[in-house]
Amino acid sequence: MTDAPAPRPSDSSPTRRGFLGAALGAAGVVAAGGAGFGIAKATESTPSPAAAKVAPSEVAFYGVHQAGIATPAQDRLAFAAFDVTARDLRALQAMLGSWAAAAARMSTGQLIGPTETAPQAPPVDTGEALGLAPGNLTITVGFGPSLFDDRFGLAAKRPGALAPIPTLPGDALDPSRSGGDVGVQACSDDPQVAFHVIRNFARIARGTAVMRWSQLGFGRTSSTSTTQATPRNLMGFKDGTNNIKAEDTAVMNDFVWVGEETDQPWMKDGSYLVTRRIRMLIETWDADYIADQQRVFGRFKDTGAPLSGRNEFDRVDLDASANGQPVIPADAHIRLAAPGNNNGQKILRRGYSYTDGNDPTTGQLDAGLFFIAYQKDPRRQFIPIQTRLGGNDALNEYIKHVGSALFAVPPGLSGPGDWFGKALFA
Amino acid sequence: MTDAPAPRPSDSSPTRRGFLGAALGAAGVVAAGGAGFGIAKATESTPSPAAAKVAPSEVAFYGVHQAGIATPAQDRLAFAAFDVTARDLRALQAMLGSWAAAAARMSTGQLIGPTETAPQAPPVDTGEALGLAPGNLTITVGFGPSLFDDRFGLAAKRPGALAPIPTLPGDALDPSRSGGDVGVQACSDDPQVAFHVIRNFARIARGTAVMRWSQLGFGRTSSTSTTQATPRNLMGFKDGTNNIKAEDTAVMNDFVWVGEETDQPWMKDGSYLVTRRIRMLIETWDADYIADQQRVFGRFKDTGAPLSGRNEFDRVDLDASANGQPVIPADAHIRLAAPGNNNGQKILRRGYSYTDGNDPTTGQLDAGLFFIAYQKDPRRQFIPIQTRLGGNDALNEYIKHVGSALFAVPPGLSGPGDWFGKALFA
Repeated sequence: MTDAPAPRPSDSSPTRRGFLGAALGAAGVVAAGGAGFGIAKATESTPSPAAAKVAPSEVAFYGVHQAGIATPAQDRLAFAAFDVTARDLRALQAMLGSWAAAAARMSTGQLIGPTETAPQAPPVDTGEALGLAPGNLTITVGFGPSLFDDRFGLAAKRPGALAPIPTLPGDALDPSRSGGDVGVQACSDDPQVAFHVIRNFARIARGTAVMRWSQLGFGRTSSTSTTQATPRNLMGFKDGTNNIKAEDTAVMNDFVWVGEETDQPWMKDGSYLVTRRIRMLIETWDADYIADQQRVFGRFKDTGAPLSGRNEFDRVDLDASANGQPVIPADAHIRLAAPGNNNGQKILRRGYSYTDGNDPTTGQLDAGLFFIAYQKDPRRQFIPIQTRLGGNDALNEYIKHVGSALFAVPPGLSGPGDWFGKALFA
Repeated sequence: MTDAPAPRPSDSSPTRRGFLGAALGAAGVVAAGGAGFGIAKATESTPSPAAAKVAPSEVAFYGVHQAGIATPAQDRLAFAAFDVTARDLRALQAMLGSWAAAAARMSTGQLIGPTETAPQAPPVDTGEALGLAPGNLTITVGFGPSLFDDRFGLAAKRPGALAPIPTLPGDALDPSRSGGDVGVQACSDDPQVAFHVIRNFARIARGTAVMRWSQLGFGRTSSTSTTQATPRNLMGFKDGTNNIKAEDTAVMNDFVWVGEETDQPWMKDGSYLVTRRIRMLIETWDADYIADQQRVFGRFKDTGAPLSGRNEFDRVDLDASANGQPVIPADAHIRLAAPGNNNGQKILRRGYSYTDGNDPTTGQLDAGLFFIAYQKDPRRQFIPIQTRLGGNDALNEYIKHVGSALFAVPPGLSGPGDWFGKALFA
């Protein structure tokens, strides 16, 4: 019923190039001309004075660190991992530049370009977020270990901390839900706004990168700010009471932000992102006795208090005992995850509950936790912590790690003209 | 790590029977004793004076009609279809009674039972909604055509309007995402509250019914009230501007509520629910020219105005022409769906956007519209309308109907002691 076959977006359309700082056009410009210049120009042409002032329900896109890490966890998540299919480094750079230009606009609630000008061209923005408030939208981009293989000559730039996560005890990973060259975390209080990001990023990426896996998270399971109450996970528990809070700058510097110690200066002020798709065996869990459920976590279900206390934020007393037994069992989740049992290490958790329907053969829900954690160095943080948990945690009877990914999240963007990981490619 | 194997919930636990009106215990009571009595008793013991007064963010559960039809469409959806595996009619009745008791409680933000009493028993409520406001939660239950086969002796009670939907033009249905003996629509402004309903319903159903398919809807695509703006679907368009609005009582009576005309008195004041999982071929759509996209819908993308007008709510003028061509093309979605081209018939649409990740082989997003429509008689409403659309709609190039279900939604519950479809079994 179309008048003509629908063509791919064309970079040669002058009408379209005038907009957005050519989120879609930058690739063409760069491929044709000087590396980097096209992107800088593109992002400079993005109207972004708005980015300087931050309106209610907006989070500043530019800054020392990328937004979406220290930002109080928003209610909804859309996450996507991409594999780069282009073999031209400049195409990848152009994509990252176009993403940055688009992200700056979306963070202030703007479309990435018009939907109705130039009738004989596709809309620049897909349009489903038109009229929606950004809902504290943040867009966070990182690079997986696989990006540093021999395709782009980046091997020497791979940080030691980005070594692939080894197989951990209890892993049951699905490769099609794991890994990826580039990861994108979009968080917003409005799920349509978050979805809009990964959908438009995928569109901008076309010809350069392809979506490898994606995940919608319907409800946050972490509090990352002293302003937030601890939410419940799908096991009905408050897990993460002692999470790192963004207001604690010293802890953020010690455990989350990459500092001078890095072997790769392009990562300074960045962080390392680990995602794990943790399926909960909900039906089994739901049949477990409450006393056992509470022993598994080491907390009371209703209040969230540690079994050694009465209120949620009471100190977790790992030495408390009753009748010669530890009050918090030896294999309780909070004991094994406690910094005191992990060389003092902590991680910033920022996960979301998910459900992707059910297994049609058993009727069991495919639901659980899409775990997200930020840290300074996974080799000293996530990996040893999860090695301990995967081997011993009482929770293992009720969960299965089915997806895993690791991304080096470069520092924040300084302003228009900067882009995700620019220093990596310098 | 458990002290003992986790047993199934036991109906014989006096501690547990004292609660909830034994959402989980009713089945046992009924199976052991007089049909119906156990449920009535169970629901009577549900503390429900609260149901009479409706607090902010609460929708009354009891009433002439089930809630969730005329209720202004909430932001989020969890939908599940179940197949009844029990062959004992009383088990099915007990499940419906327990669901009703649980639904009454959840609608007022209460747990269906305690999470922490009786340590040597599983929690009655799974707990993830503890502390969350109901967010205008509604729970709507209906019966599929398959329930009226020879298993329960209900064949003579099947309404004519519940005839299975025939294969329609363009159907590409996946049986594992279609059909079902019983359907449950849970809508809330909080997705965790909606998920909590289908998860706890599945738990109550255990041994009686098994989940066949389920669907999370992350954002409403319909306005069903004059108090709501028209949202955008994932194609970026406002579709449904002329949807039935619940405030228009005459239209609701003419097109949505089953009246005296029904061949099955148990359905009076009920409605018929059609769901369709409509996958959007997003990548193809996004490459289409804006002028063509607008011709496909018959509306402007930015404003939502019909191509024959300037503002969203301007009359759709199907006779308007320019240069000898109709302004709204012959195959435009709004022309084919218009009541004037469907014997004056209308349906109440109440759908949601969904995404379930992406195809790992192509990277294409699995996303689209989970279409929901209520009507008095699908034989005169959904079926002829979709037959026309499926054969001729310009939109067909960009969508695929991959799931379908039909449910007879009985009238509302009169109060504690009543349950979903009680009159059907009378």
